Amino acid sequence: MSKKYQVVGIGNSIVDVLSQVEDEFLVENGIERGIMTLINLERAAEIYEKTGPSMEISGGSAANTIAGLAQMGVRTAYVGKVKDDQLGTIFSHDLRAQGADYETPLAPADHEAETGRCMVMVSPDAERSMNTYLGVSEFLTPDDIDEAMMADTDWIYLEGYRFDGPESHAAFAKAIDACRGAGGKVSLTLSDPFCVERHRDEFRSMINDHIDLLFCNEHELRAMYEDEDLSVALRLASKEVDTVVCTVGEKGAYVWRDGFETHAPADPIHIVDATGAGDLFASGFFYGELNGYDTLTTGRMGCVAAGEIISHIGARPEADLKILFAKHDLI
Amino acid sequence: MSKKYQVVGIGNSIVDVLSQVEDEFLVENGIERGIMTLINLERAAEIYEKTGPSMEISGGSAANTIAGLAQMGVRTAYVGKVKDDQLGTIFSHDLRAQGADYETPLAPADHEAETGRCMVMVSPDAERSMNTYLGVSEFLTPDDIDEAMMADTDWIYLEGYRFDGPESHAAFAKAIDACRGAGGKVSLTLSDPFCVERHRDEFRSMINDHIDLLFCNEHELRAMYEDEDLSVALRLASKEVDTVVCTVGEKGAYVWRDGFETHAPADPIHIVDATGAGDLFASGFFYGELNGYDTLTTGRMGCVAAGEIISHIGARPEADLKILFAKHDLI
Repeated sequence: MSKKYQVVGIGNSIVDVLSQVEDEFLVENGIERGIMTLINLERAAEIYEKTGPSMEISGGSAANTIAGLAQMGVRTAYVGKVKDDQLGTIFSHDLRAQGADYETPLAPADHEAETGRCMVMVSPDAERSMNTYLGVSEFLTPDDIDEAMMADTDWIYLEGYRFDGPESHAAFAKAIDACRGAGGKVSLTLSDPFCVERHRDEFRSMINDHIDLLFCNEHELRAMYEDEDLSVALRLASKEVDTVVCTVGEKGAYVWRDGFETHAPADPIHIVDATGAGDLFASGFFYGELNGYDTLTTGRMGCVAAGEIISHIGARPEADLKILFAKHDLI
Repeated sequence: MSKKYQVVGIGNSIVDVLSQVEDEFLVENGIERGIMTLINLERAAEIYEKTGPSMEISGGSAANTIAGLAQMGVRTAYVGKVKDDQLGTIFSHDLRAQGADYETPLAPADHEAETGRCMVMVSPDAERSMNTYLGVSEFLTPDDIDEAMMADTDWIYLEGYRFDGPESHAAFAKAIDACRGAGGKVSLTLSDPFCVERHRDEFRSMINDHIDLLFCNEHELRAMYEDEDLSVALRLASKEVDTVVCTVGEKGAYVWRDGFETHAPADPIHIVDATGAGDLFASGFFYGELNGYDTLTTGRMGCVAAGEIISHIGARPEADLKILFAKHDLI
């Protein structure tokens, strides 16, 4: 009998606050270009006051992946913490409206932190620089992990970013045990090279012991294996994990599986906003994986889904991804 | 000496919650297509639960107009009420970030209502149907009107929608008196045909007594003068107001001034979301008016600004409007 869920994601629950900036703005305000930096509420308020008119779109790395999967009809759930406030309502609505189950207990309205948000500053060349206030997302604990849910899914999908929190390792461990104990598989995304720097040892030990499918990009993988040569890092990773999927920007992705490398090329895209490329790549790849497609097709599905998300502002899909797969003759 | 402000807008402070819908959704949920309907918080929650993934972009009719003007460097301020909550913070930020002054006292965090929001449901043909929860916006009172500000502006711009509230007539009257007493001029937008039905007598008396510049569309003007023949309604209006500007969708706008009619044609546009067309028309028209352009050029500026806003999701400008005017050889 099939399990209730095909993929359950665990991550930071974030509403993106998107604005256009000039690169000088990043320099003047000490914002590092192209990466994700964690900030506190005071710094968030300070930067927000300086940024131009914005729009708010639900985000969060694993949540974006789950939203993409839910849009394609994959049975999904998401675990991550928001508060009982207006941004929390927005985040919850957008995930459920896409068809994902989302029942993580809300942090109460009197919690000292607020629902997390990410100031996504998009440069003229479409690169995005992210400043994230994690808010209550950081307070995910093992109590928020429903073992029955983790046992009733084919895959769990862990967001590397969520390692930035006091009880998150324990929460991840509880989810992994429940999932694997019931025959499920475990996937992880490395999220960000600086996130890898912060947690290299824990990531390595988790990868070695528990991970069946690893998502990363070239910068994250190089940081993880401390080797500038991507092919060396890929080989090292492939010895530790069944399937390693490494995106390489406009060149697409490399998939290492059973000792073989498959290259899935990406199509040329006019990039509007790079936010969410890796997240939606994971949606597309999972879709192929869950439906038994060959490795090249599966990788191409990742590239096509990533291509959709970078063609517009925001990290939640606007076009129907399955129709895009059909137009690319993948399904 | 020039006044501190060129245009001060007074209206409903609203955050738009934009989603794509099929027309069947509107029918099934009893939502009237193409118009604005006022709803309470319960109904707002009910509809929100049924709509798909959304994005949040600051809106409000007069606020959109002021944002457009501020983007073009016009000296502006806005008056309208939000609460000390997350949506209120978003609304305030986006207006100030665009360069408008906005200092209306916040409704306190324990106020029973919340910051207003509008569920903007965009149909496949780009028509938008709006369900608005006014929230604290409805509680604008004469106390919120700063007479010194109203005396220190060339124009005030009144949003017809804001007539839907207990003390708003008194607030408008206070603003009009202070503005006209200092030699300023008064403009009004009729906002919506149903809004006109609700307030026809008050609008007529205000138009007759105080209005120098009237913005409307064909449906609103027909409703106001209860005549199906637009040319009749236009003639009637032009006898009561110095300048009547009536937009007619893809056909552009008619401007009646000093007994003469000028037709400003619109360019063909691929419409993505009709929200804000009238609001940004007013921005463009005001820009021409304030800078002494001839009537045709002024009307064309309205059409070009409206064309920008309907070419993308959301009712706040994304492209630089003055650059668009230059590309259309208007400046």
